[in-house]
Amino acid sequence: MKSPIAVVVLAAGAGTRMKSALPKVLHSVAGRPMLAHVLAAVARLKPAKIVGVISPGAEAVAKAFAPHPTAVQKKAQGTGDAVKAVLPELRGHSGPVLVVYGDSPLITAASLQRLVEACRKGKASVGVLGFTARDPSPYGRLVVKDGTLERIVESKDANAEEKAIAFSNSGVTCIAGTEIAAFLGALRNDNVKSEFYLTDVVGIARAAGHHAIAVAGEEAEFMGVNSRAELAMAERAMQQRLRSEAMAAGVTMLDPDTVWLSADTRLGSDVTIGPNVRFGPGVTVASNVCINAFCDIEGARIASGAIIGPFARLRPGSDVAEDVHIGNFVELKATRMRRGAKANHLAYLGDSDIGAASNIGAGTIFVNYDGYGKHRTVIGDDVFVGSNSALVAPVKVGKGANVTAGSVITDDVPPGALAFGRARQETKKGRAGPLRAKLQARAAAAKARKGK
Amino acid sequence: MKSPIAVVVLAAGAGTRMKSALPKVLHSVAGRPMLAHVLAAVARLKPAKIVGVISPGAEAVAKAFAPHPTAVQKKAQGTGDAVKAVLPELRGHSGPVLVVYGDSPLITAASLQRLVEACRKGKASVGVLGFTARDPSPYGRLVVKDGTLERIVESKDANAEEKAIAFSNSGVTCIAGTEIAAFLGALRNDNVKSEFYLTDVVGIARAAGHHAIAVAGEEAEFMGVNSRAELAMAERAMQQRLRSEAMAAGVTMLDPDTVWLSADTRLGSDVTIGPNVRFGPGVTVASNVCINAFCDIEGARIASGAIIGPFARLRPGSDVAEDVHIGNFVELKATRMRRGAKANHLAYLGDSDIGAASNIGAGTIFVNYDGYGKHRTVIGDDVFVGSNSALVAPVKVGKGANVTAGSVITDDVPPGALAFGRARQETKKGRAGPLRAKLQARAAAAKARKGK
Amino acid sequence: MKSPIAVVVLAAGAGTRMKSALPKVLHSVAGRPMLAHVLAAVARLKPAKIVGVISPGAEAVAKAFAPHPTAVQKKAQGTGDAVKAVLPELRGHSGPVLVVYGDSPLITAASLQRLVEACRKGKASVGVLGFTARDPSPYGRLVVKDGTLERIVESKDANAEEKAIAFSNSGVTCIAGTEIAAFLGALRNDNVKSEFYLTDVVGIARAAGHHAIAVAGEEAEFMGVNSRAELAMAERAMQQRLRSEAMAAGVTMLDPDTVWLSADTRLGSDVTIGPNVRFGPGVTVASNVCINAFCDIEGARIASGAIIGPFARLRPGSDVAEDVHIGNFVELKATRMRRGAKANHLAYLGDSDIGAASNIGAGTIFVNYDGYGKHRTVIGDDVFVGSNSALVAPVKVGKGANVTAGSVITDDVPPGALAFGRARQETKKGRAGPLRAKLQARAAAAKARKGK
Repeated sequence: MKSPIAVVVLAAGAGTRMKSALPKVLHSVAGRPMLAHVLAAVARLKPAKIVGVISPGAEAVAKAFAPHPTAVQKKAQGTGDAVKAVLPELRGHSGPVLVVYGDSPLITAASLQRLVEACRKGKASVGVLGFTARDPSPYGRLVVKDGTLERIVESKDANAEEKAIAFSNSGVTCIAGTEIAAFLGALRNDNVKSEFYLTDVVGIARAAGHHAIAVAGEEAEFMGVNSRAELAMAERAMQQRLRSEAMAAGVTMLDPDTVWLSADTRLGSDVTIGPNVRFGPGVTVASNVCINAFCDIEGARIASGAIIGPFARLRPGSDVAEDVHIGNFVELKATRMRRGAKANHLAYLGDSDIGAASNIGAGTIFVNYDGYGKHRTVIGDDVFVGSNSALVAPVKVGKGANVTAGSVITDDVPPGALAFGRARQETKKGRAGPLRAKLQARAAAAKARKGK
Repeated sequence: MKSPIAVVVLAAGAGTRMKSALPKVLHSVAGRPMLAHVLAAVARLKPAKIVGVISPGAEAVAKAFAPHPTAVQKKAQGTGDAVKAVLPELRGHSGPVLVVYGDSPLITAASLQRLVEACRKGKASVGVLGFTARDPSPYGRLVVKDGTLERIVESKDANAEEKAIAFSNSGVTCIAGTEIAAFLGALRNDNVKSEFYLTDVVGIARAAGHHAIAVAGEEAEFMGVNSRAELAMAERAMQQRLRSEAMAAGVTMLDPDTVWLSADTRLGSDVTIGPNVRFGPGVTVASNVCINAFCDIEGARIASGAIIGPFARLRPGSDVAEDVHIGNFVELKATRMRRGAKANHLAYLGDSDIGAASNIGAGTIFVNYDGYGKHRTVIGDDVFVGSNSALVAPVKVGKGANVTAGSVITDDVPPGALAFGRARQETKKGRAGPLRAKLQARAAAAKARKGK
Repeated sequence: MKSPIAVVVLAAGAGTRMKSALPKVLHSVAGRPMLAHVLAAVARLKPAKIVGVISPGAEAVAKAFAPHPTAVQKKAQGTGDAVKAVLPELRGHSGPVLVVYGDSPLITAASLQRLVEACRKGKASVGVLGFTARDPSPYGRLVVKDGTLERIVESKDANAEEKAIAFSNSGVTCIAGTEIAAFLGALRNDNVKSEFYLTDVVGIARAAGHHAIAVAGEEAEFMGVNSRAELAMAERAMQQRLRSEAMAAGVTMLDPDTVWLSADTRLGSDVTIGPNVRFGPGVTVASNVCINAFCDIEGARIASGAIIGPFARLRPGSDVAEDVHIGNFVELKATRMRRGAKANHLAYLGDSDIGAASNIGAGTIFVNYDGYGKHRTVIGDDVFVGSNSALVAPVKVGKGANVTAGSVITDDVPPGALAFGRARQETKKGRAGPLRAKLQARAAAAKARKGK
C-alpha cells in the first residue's frame, strides 16, 4: 500500500505589489480564488492531509483553507522557514510531503502526481518539478546527471555551463516525510537576505546520502502571481486552457479570445458562442445551444435548442428549458422558463416561473421587489403577456390567458382570461400644435433665464 | 481562345475532430459557410463547370453546392480517389481541371488564377500551388529544378537536403483535362493507409514525359480546418484580412481585433467603429457614420451622418437614413427610419416606418406581435412619441402629431393631433408610511415562515 | 539659469493614406487627438514657446494648436523646409529648439527632457533621439563614435557595417537656437525627391565644427501614424501603456486587452474591471469600485463602493456616490445618484438628482425631453419608485415617498406621499379564447392576401 501524501500550501506571501487590501492568494482567476485552484488541483491527489501556511492575522486566508488547518509563519524568513512552520502539523506523517504555492493557480494535478510517483519509484527523498524555461535567466537551474538532481544553482551563482541549462526550478518540491524535519533543521540563513530557502534541501539531502530527482512539467503551470499584470497573465493562460478544452469537445467560438469561462463552466457539443460572452461561475449549457454576442451568464442552466442573446443577461437561478429564446436587453434572475417560452426584447424577469410556450412581450417588467421583500410571478403555459406590461408580484397568470399590452397587473389572472390594466386612448384633434407652441415658449424662456 | 476551366471541390472529409452534427464544410467563417467562401473564390475564375465531391448521404453539402452537381466518394480512400469520383462529370472536358478544398476558406482567386495561367503558359499538364511554410515539417515539399516541379516528397520520406526545403505543397492542383483520367488511373494505393493520393499525379505525369510546375501562394490562404480550434484560427485570419481592407479604404477601428465583419460587409470612408462591434451578413454603411462600442448589426443599411450605439442592435430589414441617431439598448427590426429621426434610449422598434425628424422617446415599444401575426406601425414625419409609450400595431400616427409619455396607443392618431392613453395621477398624502409598514410586516412574516 | 526651450511641432503632413476628410494629426488616440498628446508631452518641458507647422488652409489644425502660433509650410518640400517655415517665429530665441512630430502621439516628455539635458551638458549644437530598432531596415542609422553622433546614414546608402547598426533615427531633433537659422540655410535639396531633409543638419553642424550627439529612447514612443492601420497600432500601444500604469497602481482587469482607457482616466486602487469596458474622456473612479463587463462610461465620477454594470452606460455628467448600484441596461446622463441609491435594471435616468438610499425600479424612464427643452427630475432621499414608471419632468418626488409601479407621474409628489398614475385592472373571464380566435383569423386572412 502506498504511504499517504501530505500537501503544504504556501500562502504567506505579502503580495505588496498587488497594491490591494485583499490577500494575494484570494484574488480570482477564472471566477475562483487562486488558492481554490491550487486546493482543487492537490485534492485530486487525495492527500491524507493539506496544511496551509499563512501570515500572521490572515484570517481570510485561513478561512479559505478551511476545513484544512493552517500554520502561521511569524516572520517572512523564506520558503524553508515557511515549511518549518507546519512541522508540528506533519508530526507522525511518514509519506511524501508536497510543497506547492498558493499564488500559482495553473498547477496541474497531473504534474504533481508525476512528481510523487517518480519520488516513490526512484526512492528519492527529495524531488523537484522543473520546466524548460523560454527565458531561464530569472530561475534557479536544475543540474541533473544520470537521473540524479545533483544541485540547484541560483541564476546569479551559475557559471557559463550552468547558465546554458534551460531546465529550471519551479519551487514545487516533494520531500520524504521521514526526513523533512531533519532536512529543514539543517537549513541555514547565511545569505544576503538572511532567509531560509527550501531550495537548499536538495544539497542537504544529497550531502546526507539521499537520492534527489527532478521531474518536468510545463512552464505555463508554474506561473506565479505577484502583481495585477501577472494576475491578468495567469487569467489569460487559464482562459486559453479552458477555451481549448471546450473547443476540443465540440464548441464553436467565433473569437475564442473574447469568451471568458469560469473554471466550472460546462458546455455541450455543437454549442455556438459569439464574440464577447462572459460565463460567471455555475453555468451548464446543453448541446445545440446558440449563445449570441454580448451575453453575461452566471449561475444558469441552459437546455438544448435554446437561443440566447445578443445582449442577454442571465443571473443566478436562471433555468432555461429546451428551445427557449431570450433576446436583447433581457435580464433573468431566479427565473425558470419552460420549454419553448420566449422573451425576445427588453425585459426584466425576476423571481418567476414562466410556463411552456408562453410569450413575454417587449418591455415587460416583473415587479418582484416592493422595497422590503421579493415576490414571485407565476405564469402558466401558453400565456401571452403583451408588451410594456408590469406584473406586480406576488401574482399568477393562468394557462392560456392574455395580458394586453401596456397593462399593470396586480391581481391574479385566471386561466383563459383576458386582463386589461391600462387607460383608454383619447385623441384630441389639432391639439399637438398648441401644445408644441407652449413647450417651445417654455424652452425659450428657460434659455433666456440662463442667458441672464 | 482559352480552353474553359473545370473546378473540383473536395468536400467529402469526415471532420470527426469537429465533434459536430453539422458537416465540416458547412461550418461558418465570417458569417458564411466555409464551402461558400471556396465557391465564391473559384467563381471568380468563371469556370465552365464546378463539381463537388461529397461523402455518402451528405445531402446538406450537396444542397450547398447546388446548382453545381456533386459526385459521391463511396469510401474515404484518399484525395486521388475523391477526384476519380467526378471523372464521369468531367467527360469531354479538355481544359484545365483545378482541384481545391472545401475546408480551406481563405483560398484566393488570385492564386488559383496564377496557377491556371502558369500551367497554360508553361504547357504543364500538372501544376501545384505551394507556399513557403513558416514550419514546413508537417508538409510535403515541392522539389523544383529549373522551373520544373520534379516531385513532391512527403515529410517523413524526405532526406536532409529535402527537409531543408521550405516550399511546401498546398494540395491545390491543376491537371490538364485531356490527361486527368489517365493520371488518376495510374494512381496506386500501396501505402500504409491503402489510400490513393492526388499528390502522386506529379510523379505519374513526369514519368509519362509531361511537364509539371509549382506556383507560389501565401501560407495563410491554404489554412485547412479540421477542428474547432482551427476553425477559430481561420476565422481570425479571415477577419484580419477583412479588417485590413476596411482600414486601407479609410475606416477607423479603435481596436480592430474587436470588430467582427462578414464577408459581405460594406463600409464607406471615414466610418468610425468603436470597440466590440459585430457585423452579421448583409450590412452596408455609408461614409461619415459613427458606430459606437457594443453594437450588433445584421441585414442593415446605414446612411451617411448616422450615429449608432453604443449598445444598439440592428436586425435584418433595418434601413437607417441620413443623420439618424440610434442610442443605447435600442433594437430595430424590419424598420425604416427616415432622415434625422431619433430613438436614443431603450426601445423596441419592429415592423415599422418612422418619418423624418421624428423623435421616439425612451422606453417606447412598438407592439408588433399579437401571438399570431406581425403588424406594422407607421409614424409620419415630425412626430413626437413620448417616453414609455406602447403603440399597438397595426397603427398609424400622422405627421406632426404628439403621443404623450406613458400612453398605450391602439387607434390611429391623425396628423397634428395629441393622443393620450394613460391614467391621471392620484396623490395620497402621508400614505407611503402606512404602505411601507404593511409591506415590511409582510416581508417579516415571510421571513419568519421560511425560518420555521 | 537655463536658457528657455522652443518646440517646433511638425503637423503639415498630407496624410493621404488615411483616406480621410479629417487632417491626420486630429485623428484620436485614447480619446484625444494625436496632436493633443504631443502638445501635452512637450508642455511638461515648460517651453518658452511652442510653434506648429501646418499645411496651407489647415485651419482645424491651427485651431488645435491655439493658443500656440502656427506657420504655414507652403509646399511639401521635406522636414527641413517645414522647420524653415517657423524661423520667423523663432527670431531672438537662443535656447534649444526641439523638433517633434504631430503624428507621433506616444512620444514621452522624459525622452525629450533627456535629449535637451544631454545637449546642454555636452554643449552639442545638434542632438537626435535614437532607438534600438527591432527591424532597423526602414530607418536612417545613427553612427556614433566616442559619444559623438558622426552622421546619419539613410538605409539605402548604408554600407554593410552601417547596416549592422540597430541604433536608428527617430527624427526628433534638438538644435541650438543660436545656430538653427544657419544650419537650415545650408540645407540642400539635390536629392531624388528634391526635398530638404532635417536629418542633414547633423552633417552641416559637424562640418562647421559643432558637436552633435544622440540620446536613446524606446522604439514604441516614436511610432508615427500614416494610415488607419498604424492609427490602430498607436492606439493599441497607448492602451497598453495606460493599462500597465493602472494595473501597477492596484487595478484588476480581468482581460486588460478589452479595457479601453482614455488618456485622462483616473482609477483608484482595488478597482475591479470586467472584460469589455470602455472609458471615454473625463472619468474618475475611486477605490473599491467594481465595474462589471460590458460598460461604457464617459464624463463620470464614481465613488467608493459603487457597483456598475454589466451593460451599464454612464454618460457625461454622471455623478455616482458611495455604494450606489447601477445594473444592466441602465443609462445615466447628467444625473447625480447619492449614497446608496440603486437603479438595477433597464432604466433611463437623465437630467436628474436621486436622493440617498432611493430605489429606482426596473423599466423606469425619466421623461426629460419634450421636443424642445430638457427638464429635471428631482428625487428625494429614501424614495421608492415602482417599476415601469415614467416621471415627466420637471417633477419632484419628496423624501420617503412611494410611486407605484406602472405610474405616469406628471405632478410633484410631496414627502411621504403615495402616488398612483395607472389604470385599475379589469379581468374578463374566458375572453382570451375568443380574442385569440379573432387574432388568428386576422393573421390567416393577411397570409391569404399575401399569397394572392
